[in-house]
Amino acid sequence: MGSKVVTFGEIMLRLSPPGHQRFVQATSFDAVYGGGEANVAVSLANYGLDAYFVTKVPNHEMGQCAVNALRSLGVHTDYVARGGDRLGIYFCELGASQRASRVIYDRANSAIAQIEPGEFEWAEILRGAQWFHFTGITPALSDTAAAVTLEAARTAKDMGIKVSADLNYRKKLWSQEKANRVMSELMRYVDVAIGNEEDAEKIFGISAHSSDVTRGQLCMEAYQDVAQELRRRFGLDSVAITLRESISASDNMWSGMLYNGHDFHVSRKYRVHIVDRVGGGDSFAGGLIYALLTGMEGKDAVEFAAAASCLKHSVFGDFNMVSTLEVEALASGDGSGRVQR
Amino acid sequence: MGSKVVTFGEIMLRLSPPGHQRFVQATSFDAVYGGGEANVAVSLANYGLDAYFVTKVPNHEMGQCAVNALRSLGVHTDYVARGGDRLGIYFCELGASQRASRVIYDRANSAIAQIEPGEFEWAEILRGAQWFHFTGITPALSDTAAAVTLEAARTAKDMGIKVSADLNYRKKLWSQEKANRVMSELMRYVDVAIGNEEDAEKIFGISAHSSDVTRGQLCMEAYQDVAQELRRRFGLDSVAITLRESISASDNMWSGMLYNGHDFHVSRKYRVHIVDRVGGGDSFAGGLIYALLTGMEGKDAVEFAAAASCLKHSVFGDFNMVSTLEVEALASGDGSGRVQR
Amino acid sequence: MGSKVVTFGEIMLRLSPPGHQRFVQATSFDAVYGGGEANVAVSLANYGLDAYFVTKVPNHEMGQCAVNALRSLGVHTDYVARGGDRLGIYFCELGASQRASRVIYDRANSAIAQIEPGEFEWAEILRGAQWFHFTGITPALSDTAAAVTLEAARTAKDMGIKVSADLNYRKKLWSQEKANRVMSELMRYVDVAIGNEEDAEKIFGISAHSSDVTRGQLCMEAYQDVAQELRRRFGLDSVAITLRESISASDNMWSGMLYNGHDFHVSRKYRVHIVDRVGGGDSFAGGLIYALLTGMEGKDAVEFAAAASCLKHSVFGDFNMVSTLEVEALASGDGSGRVQR
Amino acid sequence: MGSKVVTFGEIMLRLSPPGHQRFVQATSFDAVYGGGEANVAVSLANYGLDAYFVTKVPNHEMGQCAVNALRSLGVHTDYVARGGDRLGIYFCELGASQRASRVIYDRANSAIAQIEPGEFEWAEILRGAQWFHFTGITPALSDTAAAVTLEAARTAKDMGIKVSADLNYRKKLWSQEKANRVMSELMRYVDVAIGNEEDAEKIFGISAHSSDVTRGQLCMEAYQDVAQELRRRFGLDSVAITLRESISASDNMWSGMLYNGHDFHVSRKYRVHIVDRVGGGDSFAGGLIYALLTGMEGKDAVEFAAAASCLKHSVFGDFNMVSTLEVEALASGDGSGRVQR
Amino acid sequence: MGSKVVTFGEIMLRLSPPGHQRFVQATSFDAVYGGGEANVAVSLANYGLDAYFVTKVPNHEMGQCAVNALRSLGVHTDYVARGGDRLGIYFCELGASQRASRVIYDRANSAIAQIEPGEFEWAEILRGAQWFHFTGITPALSDTAAAVTLEAARTAKDMGIKVSADLNYRKKLWSQEKANRVMSELMRYVDVAIGNEEDAEKIFGISAHSSDVTRGQLCMEAYQDVAQELRRRFGLDSVAITLRESISASDNMWSGMLYNGHDFHVSRKYRVHIVDRVGGGDSFAGGLIYALLTGMEGKDAVEFAAAASCLKHSVFGDFNMVSTLEVEALASGDGSGRVQR
Amino acid sequence: MGSKVVTFGEIMLRLSPPGHQRFVQATSFDAVYGGGEANVAVSLANYGLDAYFVTKVPNHEMGQCAVNALRSLGVHTDYVARGGDRLGIYFCELGASQRASRVIYDRANSAIAQIEPGEFEWAEILRGAQWFHFTGITPALSDTAAAVTLEAARTAKDMGIKVSADLNYRKKLWSQEKANRVMSELMRYVDVAIGNEEDAEKIFGISAHSSDVTRGQLCMEAYQDVAQELRRRFGLDSVAITLRESISASDNMWSGMLYNGHDFHVSRKYRVHIVDRVGGGDSFAGGLIYALLTGMEGKDAVEFAAAASCLKHSVFGDFNMVSTLEVEALASGDGSGRVQR
Repeated sequence: MGSKVVTFGEIMLRLSPPGHQRFVQATSFDAVYGGGEANVAVSLANYGLDAYFVTKVPNHEMGQCAVNALRSLGVHTDYVARGGDRLGIYFCELGASQRASRVIYDRANSAIAQIEPGEFEWAEILRGAQWFHFTGITPALSDTAAAVTLEAARTAKDMGIKVSADLNYRKKLWSQEKANRVMSELMRYVDVAIGNEEDAEKIFGISAHSSDVTRGQLCMEAYQDVAQELRRRFGLDSVAITLRESISASDNMWSGMLYNGHDFHVSRKYRVHIVDRVGGGDSFAGGLIYALLTGMEGKDAVEFAAAASCLKHSVFGDFNMVSTLEVEALASGDGSGRVQR
Repeated sequence: MGSKVVTFGEIMLRLSPPGHQRFVQATSFDAVYGGGEANVAVSLANYGLDAYFVTKVPNHEMGQCAVNALRSLGVHTDYVARGGDRLGIYFCELGASQRASRVIYDRANSAIAQIEPGEFEWAEILRGAQWFHFTGITPALSDTAAAVTLEAARTAKDMGIKVSADLNYRKKLWSQEKANRVMSELMRYVDVAIGNEEDAEKIFGISAHSSDVTRGQLCMEAYQDVAQELRRRFGLDSVAITLRESISASDNMWSGMLYNGHDFHVSRKYRVHIVDRVGGGDSFAGGLIYALLTGMEGKDAVEFAAAASCLKHSVFGDFNMVSTLEVEALASGDGSGRVQR
Repeated sequence: MGSKVVTFGEIMLRLSPPGHQRFVQATSFDAVYGGGEANVAVSLANYGLDAYFVTKVPNHEMGQCAVNALRSLGVHTDYVARGGDRLGIYFCELGASQRASRVIYDRANSAIAQIEPGEFEWAEILRGAQWFHFTGITPALSDTAAAVTLEAARTAKDMGIKVSADLNYRKKLWSQEKANRVMSELMRYVDVAIGNEEDAEKIFGISAHSSDVTRGQLCMEAYQDVAQELRRRFGLDSVAITLRESISASDNMWSGMLYNGHDFHVSRKYRVHIVDRVGGGDSFAGGLIYALLTGMEGKDAVEFAAAASCLKHSVFGDFNMVSTLEVEALASGDGSGRVQR
Repeated sequence: MGSKVVTFGEIMLRLSPPGHQRFVQATSFDAVYGGGEANVAVSLANYGLDAYFVTKVPNHEMGQCAVNALRSLGVHTDYVARGGDRLGIYFCELGASQRASRVIYDRANSAIAQIEPGEFEWAEILRGAQWFHFTGITPALSDTAAAVTLEAARTAKDMGIKVSADLNYRKKLWSQEKANRVMSELMRYVDVAIGNEEDAEKIFGISAHSSDVTRGQLCMEAYQDVAQELRRRFGLDSVAITLRESISASDNMWSGMLYNGHDFHVSRKYRVHIVDRVGGGDSFAGGLIYALLTGMEGKDAVEFAAAASCLKHSVFGDFNMVSTLEVEALASGDGSGRVQR
Repeated sequence: MGSKVVTFGEIMLRLSPPGHQRFVQATSFDAVYGGGEANVAVSLANYGLDAYFVTKVPNHEMGQCAVNALRSLGVHTDYVARGGDRLGIYFCELGASQRASRVIYDRANSAIAQIEPGEFEWAEILRGAQWFHFTGITPALSDTAAAVTLEAARTAKDMGIKVSADLNYRKKLWSQEKANRVMSELMRYVDVAIGNEEDAEKIFGISAHSSDVTRGQLCMEAYQDVAQELRRRFGLDSVAITLRESISASDNMWSGMLYNGHDFHVSRKYRVHIVDRVGGGDSFAGGLIYALLTGMEGKDAVEFAAAASCLKHSVFGDFNMVSTLEVEALASGDGSGRVQR
Repeated sequence: MGSKVVTFGEIMLRLSPPGHQRFVQATSFDAVYGGGEANVAVSLANYGLDAYFVTKVPNHEMGQCAVNALRSLGVHTDYVARGGDRLGIYFCELGASQRASRVIYDRANSAIAQIEPGEFEWAEILRGAQWFHFTGITPALSDTAAAVTLEAARTAKDMGIKVSADLNYRKKLWSQEKANRVMSELMRYVDVAIGNEEDAEKIFGISAHSSDVTRGQLCMEAYQDVAQELRRRFGLDSVAITLRESISASDNMWSGMLYNGHDFHVSRKYRVHIVDRVGGGDSFAGGLIYALLTGMEGKDAVEFAAAASCLKHSVFGDFNMVSTLEVEALASGDGSGRVQR
């Protein structure tokens, strides 16, 4: 087994109509489980690390299903708490062509949103860990979830563990004002921040002025400004940004950038034909954490993360089920998709 | 179109693993929609009546799905309110042989549970109606839901509309004490009460002493006592009781009883091979309301209700999708299941 | 390869809702192909005979699908004509418990119903054959279909080929009067007649007086009278009758009788748990033809036919996909269903 | 509810092999319901109008299924007649890449093709309506269907109701000569004509000389000539033309044109990645009728219609299940397909 | 976590046609993973024990799939070796009514059959364990597999760990002579033997004279003789026998017996309606090991084991996915299958 | 029926996760049957030739399934031998976007790999045949399979039958050295060789120097050199090469070249949107054989072959299910994929 990595957050039941059906056509829903930090843990377990996911799920079969989904892929669930009323759910309709994917959240009052400070023994959980990861979704779930996230991040920092945060702004969960206040506090314990083009603006008011993301045009310089400002404001080690240009719901351009205070490393840009883009950002985070933990440097790290997340778009569900071999093959240039016999 | 009937309550998304899968085996869930009063409305629409279902669903596609399911079968949804946070959900694992079916409710904070008194214009909704039906589930959802149920029942009574109530005790929704208090108030406006062997005991403390329902032995006399006491206590026109003897999750004996103050009419007893027993009681209520509304007398009415609900056990989902022709054929004695070409 | 057997009739596309869904619940239909004489041909091909099915299908892919279904199982389709407007269709809802299976025919104007006398070269088709089989459905399709059936039966008789007919009365296709007239003419060329309890009565007015088939009570003596009268009236070699007692749509009692002019051989009676009962009678005919062609005598023949058709009830679709080994094992007494490893 | 719109025509059961299977691979068929005018009614109901679809379906469950499909989506079916022999069917194999989609019609002798003049009370049906819509398919079904279409169009015209016709030439249903004769008579009552590049030529001999549609090259000027000639010949208010350039069965270019006698308004051109292109033209008609009924002007109207029908290509089945919000978002420029959370 | 239990053997990919399809009808196969000792490990993990399954799987995705199936349910896979050529496969057609289930094995040359002595560090693997379990299948796979089984059993015995063996004779894997020789050697290290009515006879020539299992008649006394002789011959602590009476492939009678040298404890006899009977014996073994490990006595132990395996028949796949709560409820008498809400 | 063509090789069960699932996500596998020479036989049967496929399959239902798949499509299976231990299997995960398809072979010890020289009566099998086809896979299966291939090719040559070979190098089956030795011997009897860009290099060391196939750049001149050298070295009539440029797993460029000693005929180049690319080369071979057998000349032949195999990429499974009409329409220029009504 490799390094121990801990991630903390919510895992939800995701229900999506089969194929390209719309919600109103569905007579069944495909069920997978996912959530920002769980998705990162799965990526890391796939890459051979000792990944632990910490959450709370209700003490019934549907909670168990979420745990089983993680266990199946080798994520350690030793620290998953049981209790609370319900498992968060989200409904996800996969788009096609000009029709956008749609997400309906039904996550209020989930077990993890109702945790209380002190429920998790962070010093114990984090013992021996090299890395701790969370996203901006977890503190947005509830005030107590924010408090527990703070416990975790602070404990990790105190123990000398690297901390990464994916900003992940969710406007339905909290206001920009509240996000700014809570996340600014959390960022004090963060070493590596990850975000997309909207997160920094929505949460911290740091904007990439000239971009118009719905048109698929990205201004690289603006993003460099954002990365620099984020790093400066919160004293970060490095900042990574995922760059998505939506041609349609079926085709996107995808790349990433990593800024370490010296250089802006930009990955190759992939044209992806989308099977499922949910979890794209998480798979980038997972790839980046793996890259940095195993000693890759700037350009290599961002290429690994970008290749990993490029592949995610071809995998159904929130979890990125690819191996380091597959990521490395793509990162080193073979995107031809020829049959592997 | 036939008589106008109004039912009021919650409609939920039901998610069940395909076939006989257990929850932990499911990679998809079959989706149907159902709820006690909605199920009754569907039965009545199938029988040709003008059935209206009143509820509140969230203003998003999943709420719309529930409405569409009702519209598809001809239930009128003109009075369905939109708003609130979520659609109630329940997970349902279908049992087999000695393995019982399991239900996990995730219905707290549904749109209908959060309604406020005054949201529905009952005088308008009930105009021209011959019958109003509710179950003991609706007032159990929340205090405001109980208040609105009371509004509806009282208005119906004032307008000279027949009112029926299926007692339907749900222990996870409220205590026996609270159920007793709230339901006793509601029963003042009820003409026809329907229940199974547990309801009267759990809600009103009226027990069928000698029965041992898990063993499949039912004592008819005890149930007659229950029916008489229910009728006496609340001044009811009539009382109907469904009698289920569980041989296993695959095979049940099923019959019904109707007491009108004079006679105890007991239906034929069916041995049912179960496809889906959820909604069995509701399909009995639907059959009974149809029978009484169309002028059937005691024995005929209970035979129609019992045959209707016998057939329900062979239909997947909560809704009973059978026609009067099918019910009448069974009630008049043809249960051979020979192919109808 | 074994003996050459020719059957003639219609093959239809059968569309059935998955599992136990009702028609109004179906969002897809399982597609199989079947028809009385095609089903017999499949049985015989499974038993190793050289079975030819003769029909006409439209010259498009759906016609080809029907041919492919037959070819897949080894039925020879060399004499299948192409042309006409459409492939007959029937919708089939599988029943359960007290809910009967339902069949909706949509077979009018099918290619085979529109054939003209002289389209088939019967002398050529029947060359080298040992047996020719048809059912009472084919002449009921249209006047020209009846004429062609007559061509075939007469040619077979002239060539010294054994002819069997499954009476198979279908009330939606023709009146009893017309059936009587047409079938009486056809019976002149028949050696072996097969029917169920209703056919002889509906077509020829030969009734089994005391039976009440919807109640699952069969009077054996009455059926002996029917067999004797059928044999006498049309100068048959032998008469076989299938005996179904419907307990419910899920459970039937099933047996068969064979009368050869001397003895009434009655098979064991099976209690079948039904997967799909369509084609039950055809699988009996197929078993009987095989038995008689391979030299089995009265009791053995009817036991083989009854065992074959008992097994059919466990096979989805119209075709009986069982081997002689399986039939013989059951006929010789092993109905325990123990795993064959 | 919004304006009352009435459409009249056939609704069929559509059976398509799952995914990209060919007919000969199918062991099940996905079942949806559709037909030109029914599809328009669904679009309009989705946009909030009071859409009525008038047809006749057989009085059995398969006919009911078609009605239920319409009811589910809010289309009023009060005027659907029952009777006749069968529901029209069409088999539809969805193409991919260079392999074209294939359609096999099995619609002869459907209930609607067998209606008789006088069966529908058009004055009653059209009372209060703002718009009546039919297509060139309905009068092609049979002489009586043509006569009834004429009844409807004439009654609508007499009542001052706007009438639109989608030309929709179907070569398997009638000859060009007959189409010309019947449609020319019907066009006397039409205000708005809609067609694609072939319809005007095949029916009225009005051709877009230089286009070669199989090569994906469309000559705009030629279409303007067609539109002008159509408008002039039949005294129309306006003429709309849908412009499809087939790159392959998977990718098309799609746009529309509207000519109101003064200006030729051409919509944006979309590159669509096709989920299901059946009903594309109907969804354009539905969008256009909604646009014109709600007061949009030339350019806005054609953009709404084109955006609506662009989205249709991403929706499985004949029906276009999109909302005005979705259409407006695309029409106003967001075709990026970004996730809507 | 509870006691550590180690089981050793093969895990295979099981491929079964959906529902009740026959092999020749299948266009897809449902995939589960199973094998005698893996099934026992799953039962024990479900009951809360620390269950380890030891095997070898090929180093590709299909091998990983088998590991994931175990991990998903909480079985520890730390000691699973990687390598070899292939994963064993078996095809399984589920029977119905009089049609028997059929199994086609394709397991030759699997990774576990090709292991070499010394590949597993048994002292390390078994450290801290309370129980070791194997079946008669593993030594039948190959001579080296037999040798490794012997290593394991001897090491366990030496370490004072309880050893159980399910006799499980598979005639396609080895002759009775070889089975007798190899198993007799292995039995020297066994404390608890488990078998069905055939195993003792086929392997050791110890027969239950008067039984005729294909007729569903079991002679209890004969089985007592078998148990006594087995215990005596190999110096066992106790002997358990599962008693299956096959009414048909759909319905079986099921019970168990436990003999501890003093008393013959016979469990209640269940009539099971079969969803999937594969793994029935393994689930009995799992229940028995759990019962004995947690201190249940004779009658209680056999009732727990019988109830556990009764429930297995209602669960699809080889694995028994039931909880101790469910087993205990059934063992204590509630087999009514009433809905658990 | 047309010309008799015989192909010889292995047919395997192919198991692929539904849609774009990865192996580790699969809970079922879609089952089709295929193999290089079987695929060619299917193409030829679809084109109306009398195609015979010769192989050996185990004498159980899974072997029968493979035979049925061939029979269904009209391939003659008269010469298929029965026996041996197992049917070869391969697992196939369909890729998407940058994620490559993956194939896991499990074909060792299949029935056909274990044949012995002399098992097939080649003179009898090939009597009346015009063409014999094999691929480089069959002799790679085992030494005896190579010997039998040699028997067949030599017999065909002796009988004056045209012989074609698809080189098809499979590195997991044999080394380049062995391939070179065995194939060089076989090539002495070959008239037409078919290969892709790798085969000639891997087997015979004849390389297309400047190409870099993973980047999608093909150097036509280099391939001409390869074709010339192949033709010269083995005295071939003609050499055909398929040219695939992989843009991604979802999109490929596809074309073919045919060299007859005089001219290099290069087909149109197609951009294919991939449904299933397995069997692409075989469908080219099938198209080429048909073209040459029916007298098409160089350019026409390669266009037919390229169009046939272009269409294959849109068909699920190994078999190419397209008609000559469809191939000719595409070869003559219509790749627009417009609906065929």
